[in-house]
Amino acid sequence: MLHEKLNWRYATKKMDPSRPVAPGQLTRILEAIQLAPTSSGLQPFEVIVVTNPEVKAKLRAAAYDQSQLTDGSHVLVFAAWDNYTAERIDAVVAEIARQRGGASDTVTAYYERLKGMYLPRSAAENHEHAARQAYIAFGIAVTAAAFEGVDATPMEGFDPAQVDEILGLRARGLRSVTLLPLGHRAEAGDWLAGLKKVRKPMDALVTKVA
Amino acid sequence: MLHEKLNWRYATKKMDPSRPVAPGQLTRILEAIQLAPTSSGLQPFEVIVVTNPEVKAKLRAAAYDQSQLTDGSHVLVFAAWDNYTAERIDAVVAEIARQRGGASDTVTAYYERLKGMYLPRSAAENHEHAARQAYIAFGIAVTAAAFEGVDATPMEGFDPAQVDEILGLRARGLRSVTLLPLGHRAEAGDWLAGLKKVRKPMDALVTKVA
Repeated sequence: MLHEKLNWRYATKKMDPSRPVAPGQLTRILEAIQLAPTSSGLQPFEVIVVTNPEVKAKLRAAAYDQSQLTDGSHVLVFAAWDNYTAERIDAVVAEIARQRGGASDTVTAYYERLKGMYLPRSAAENHEHAARQAYIAFGIAVTAAAFEGVDATPMEGFDPAQVDEILGLRARGLRSVTLLPLGHRAEAGDWLAGLKKVRKPMDALVTKVA
Repeated sequence: MLHEKLNWRYATKKMDPSRPVAPGQLTRILEAIQLAPTSSGLQPFEVIVVTNPEVKAKLRAAAYDQSQLTDGSHVLVFAAWDNYTAERIDAVVAEIARQRGGASDTVTAYYERLKGMYLPRSAAENHEHAARQAYIAFGIAVTAAAFEGVDATPMEGFDPAQVDEILGLRARGLRSVTLLPLGHRAEAGDWLAGLKKVRKPMDALVTKVA
């Protein structure tokens, strides 16, 4: 089931602008992102969902004019925290306490230790760690889109500084790390649609230590 | 379907050593990793599958004595390329040519441009980029395990230098980035098994620009 979906998907190069993603499909993709595992449950990123045509056009201009950004109905922007702060980590503990009816001493002590580890580190190191967590959710978003029959184009080819500026991310303590336009493939205009999916052979990917 | 699996899984704290992962389950998890999308299809990582008890014990010692590393039947070690090199990128193009019966001029030119971009960058920057790709596959591996009814513990809490040493990764141009012990939960001994899964509310995770 999962493999069928992973084989169906590909980095769509041409989207059909006449076939938008339905609201229920978008919701389920966002819920999968919400469920993605992250280090210590921090979820150190946010997702900006862009449907505004002018903003999509600006994103396209900041991303080597890739047409999926305007032909797709939605663009998800994954934006990682620019740093770990006591306030951000305390908010995670508060959310745990809210949802579990209190935070145990073990949980509180765990996150205090985490602050002791993370807060002395550089913002750059902490952002990089946060970005890695966003990539876990990004991979799960691509998977979730496939389960919805929604095409997606995982995209790193853009100018993060420009995207941050377009969306006002820096002021919110966020930095864009990936884009994910969503839509439906326009196979006739997509050079990649008919090509075999290529992956490393298993023996080049995996080593066993038995 | 996907959501049900993502809700079923959790970062298992206690594995039952009497219930190993079956070979077919392991194969399907590895196949999902193989199918994970990565930037330009480079798949810049390898996965070491450790079942050897002595090696698992050494990994445990390098990872704050976390018991899942020996109680689980398998440990997957995700190890990212330490750098991008012309040889590594050329091997990707060769594999595309092999599987598609030749590489088009477009494909060849694309990867030449990529070499122009990546090779002048520092090894640290390239490794970090490779690590992010490994995290995409890592998230999909966790998802795939859930589809198999296999428990897994996404794990960053270990000493990468020690793990690299234990597995001889540096000599192979690899650096460990995450561990993923696989097995089956021992619910009675797992403090986390009964607790509510906590995630940020959707309005704290998602902003819409419509």
